[in-house]
Amino acid sequence: MRIEYSNKVIRTLTVKVTDKPGFLGKITTAIGECGGLIGEISTTHVGKGYKIRALDVYAEDENNLNEMLLALKNIEGSELVSVTDVVEENHMGGKIEIRPTVDINSLDDLRIVYTPGVASICHKIQQNPELARKFTTISNNVAIVTNGTAVLGLGDIGAVAGMPVMEGKGMLFKILADINGIPILLDTKDPEEIINTIKHIAPTFGAIKLEDIKAPECFEIEEKLDAMLDIPVLHDDQHGTAVVVLAALINIAKYTFLNLRESSVGIIGLGAAGTGIMKLLKAYGVKTFNGVDLDVSAMERFESLGGTRKDLRGVVSESRIVIATTGCPNLITPDMIQEGQVILALSNPNPEIDPDLAVKSGAIFAADGKSVNNALAFPGLFKGALISNARTINDQMKIAAAKAIASFALDGDLVPNILDKNVHNAVAKEVETAAYRSGSARYTEE
Amino acid sequence: MRIEYSNKVIRTLTVKVTDKPGFLGKITTAIGECGGLIGEISTTHVGKGYKIRALDVYAEDENNLNEMLLALKNIEGSELVSVTDVVEENHMGGKIEIRPTVDINSLDDLRIVYTPGVASICHKIQQNPELARKFTTISNNVAIVTNGTAVLGLGDIGAVAGMPVMEGKGMLFKILADINGIPILLDTKDPEEIINTIKHIAPTFGAIKLEDIKAPECFEIEEKLDAMLDIPVLHDDQHGTAVVVLAALINIAKYTFLNLRESSVGIIGLGAAGTGIMKLLKAYGVKTFNGVDLDVSAMERFESLGGTRKDLRGVVSESRIVIATTGCPNLITPDMIQEGQVILALSNPNPEIDPDLAVKSGAIFAADGKSVNNALAFPGLFKGALISNARTINDQMKIAAAKAIASFALDGDLVPNILDKNVHNAVAKEVETAAYRSGSARYTEE
Repeated sequence: MRIEYSNKVIRTLTVKVTDKPGFLGKITTAIGECGGLIGEISTTHVGKGYKIRALDVYAEDENNLNEMLLALKNIEGSELVSVTDVVEENHMGGKIEIRPTVDINSLDDLRIVYTPGVASICHKIQQNPELARKFTTISNNVAIVTNGTAVLGLGDIGAVAGMPVMEGKGMLFKILADINGIPILLDTKDPEEIINTIKHIAPTFGAIKLEDIKAPECFEIEEKLDAMLDIPVLHDDQHGTAVVVLAALINIAKYTFLNLRESSVGIIGLGAAGTGIMKLLKAYGVKTFNGVDLDVSAMERFESLGGTRKDLRGVVSESRIVIATTGCPNLITPDMIQEGQVILALSNPNPEIDPDLAVKSGAIFAADGKSVNNALAFPGLFKGALISNARTINDQMKIAAAKAIASFALDGDLVPNILDKNVHNAVAKEVETAAYRSGSARYTEE
Repeated sequence: MRIEYSNKVIRTLTVKVTDKPGFLGKITTAIGECGGLIGEISTTHVGKGYKIRALDVYAEDENNLNEMLLALKNIEGSELVSVTDVVEENHMGGKIEIRPTVDINSLDDLRIVYTPGVASICHKIQQNPELARKFTTISNNVAIVTNGTAVLGLGDIGAVAGMPVMEGKGMLFKILADINGIPILLDTKDPEEIINTIKHIAPTFGAIKLEDIKAPECFEIEEKLDAMLDIPVLHDDQHGTAVVVLAALINIAKYTFLNLRESSVGIIGLGAAGTGIMKLLKAYGVKTFNGVDLDVSAMERFESLGGTRKDLRGVVSESRIVIATTGCPNLITPDMIQEGQVILALSNPNPEIDPDLAVKSGAIFAADGKSVNNALAFPGLFKGALISNARTINDQMKIAAAKAIASFALDGDLVPNILDKNVHNAVAKEVETAAYRSGSARYTEE
């Protein structure tokens, strides 16, 4: 039961509101009473005695949206003008573009950046391939590669249907870390074909980000490519998520006086995310892991990494920290929760147990997947790797990223604001340092 | 002898010039007397009694540049402040970038274009793949694919050293036709591997532009891929050049009252460009072709396409129109030229015969490669194919592009200004129409 895409229907409601105190309040209250959340509110027009307001609202589903619209119709002094699909509107034509970074206003400009000028640059790179870092985008290009077999909670929807997510990553790469993130959609599910294809296009990029490729193929593909290529290859669903989970746990440990390394960790769901989390926590120093999955080969993989196989109830009852990444809403029932446990129920949009309910049932700390967005990790992680010309993104670099992310959280929060560029800059800096310390970085001429 | 990269050393000279009439003239005259060309001149500072000027100059080679600098030192009332490599400067960090086309100023914005909002778009595309044209960049993305085996006149310099050219194409795609041109560098020279790799990444793109891949592999790769994929695959070195040559010939025929279709055409050099030109002229209606190449298999290919094999002297003496694409400077000697011939000596930077010399030797019309830049063709050619959702770029579409280009040339010119967007818009429009007429276009829901 992973298909929950319709959760959170987002619409922009344009409303004509009487311009007197209290009228906007009636509208927002009505929306709240229907269970809707409100995003941005902007004023698009000021008329005589009224304003036109645009409200972004979040409904659970279409029915819930209709309830809201009905409620709004009954409010005196306001009039619903239109309902637009703000998500569709913002996706028209896609979300990224390729632009020149040089001005071309004359044929003279063209002669400098195109023929004949460009030939001298090509020749210099041919003589000294290191110069490609200086004169091309290669060292700042990251391929965002998917075959669409595990997109969000939607499953195997195909690479083309996954493109909006890939473009979203590309968008975030630029905004948060000034990296060129280039979506690459693959038409194959065969690991060998995927590996070969990525190998053949690798000269274009400074790093490869594998994205939304399903387990278990994702493990083999990442491992072989990272060994084969002299640039980092990282499957974000494993490691991006793991880095943010580690950051959150570092803060939880601080708030709860827990010794993270000495705590037993239970992992429910041993797919890409669960496995990535386990590996990184182990590298961080955690010693005891209990795990469960419906898939036998996933459990065997977990055991081979040093974990202990249990059933669901066993994992919850015998672990101080429980991390669930199953895509299965309400899998953890209140009676399972132990006094003083930390519960991270990470499935989006519906967690394995509601965090409030978990705390009510005895957990000392609980959170859901909203707080653990891997976009907190990947921009800085890749930037640090790119600027240090790293061969791979190793555990030391991931741990450095997690610590940097953790340090920026406001007191009481697990992680910082994803749009805060200072965070991503700091992550990049720490990852760069870790790359040098761990021997992954390569010195290059300036 | 193809390596002529050093021709045209481009530098910016910063000069402090007395701000009185005649002083700038002394400088520009001195540069001209050394055989240098001058591009943009800008004033970067106005001081008391002097100006600081930046002049872009084009020298034949480093020696020639040094002559210029020496000449400038001897000019009274001016002082050479600095010499900068404007080409290197403009290539720092590469020439293109990936940017978002949507604003992200708040977490609310992020929820609309990223999770959770994006999931609804993915789901819609999964249900109806046609919607990828509406909600993603795919239908406006063109892969610019090279393995670097035939870059400019530099030969097999490798894909990475070819990147500045690919970025240059990407830059022009955006500026001239608002297309996302995405460089893809391949690490293989094996046609089967190239075909497989491009096939596997094809879902990302609305069309594939093969670039600077050497003959004869380029023929097989293009042909197989174009048949295999339902999007256009076009090798620019063959067809982009051919379209611009046809455009130039249409105008030459007008100026010289030549009947193009009834004229014999001689092709010297039967590589990618020569073969592409022959094919397109044949499709246009030209009936007689004479050809020569040092490579036997190239001659056999030419014969199989309907051409007649001759030696160099035979090709020139028996053809009304002679087109040379050999990379071999001064291959055609004045004594070969026949009265009333049209000579296109297209090798850059040094033509097979200087056009002035050809005319002096009896040619009615002669031009070199400077006037036949394939960047006049590819932006509009691909745009027309993308907007009509074409399966392939066929001869009708190429001919439509050539006619549109020809029609924009000012009287007496062969082709129009490459930076004139009206040209590229008109080409796109004509190609779109031709795609519909010829059955290459697919109707799509709006």
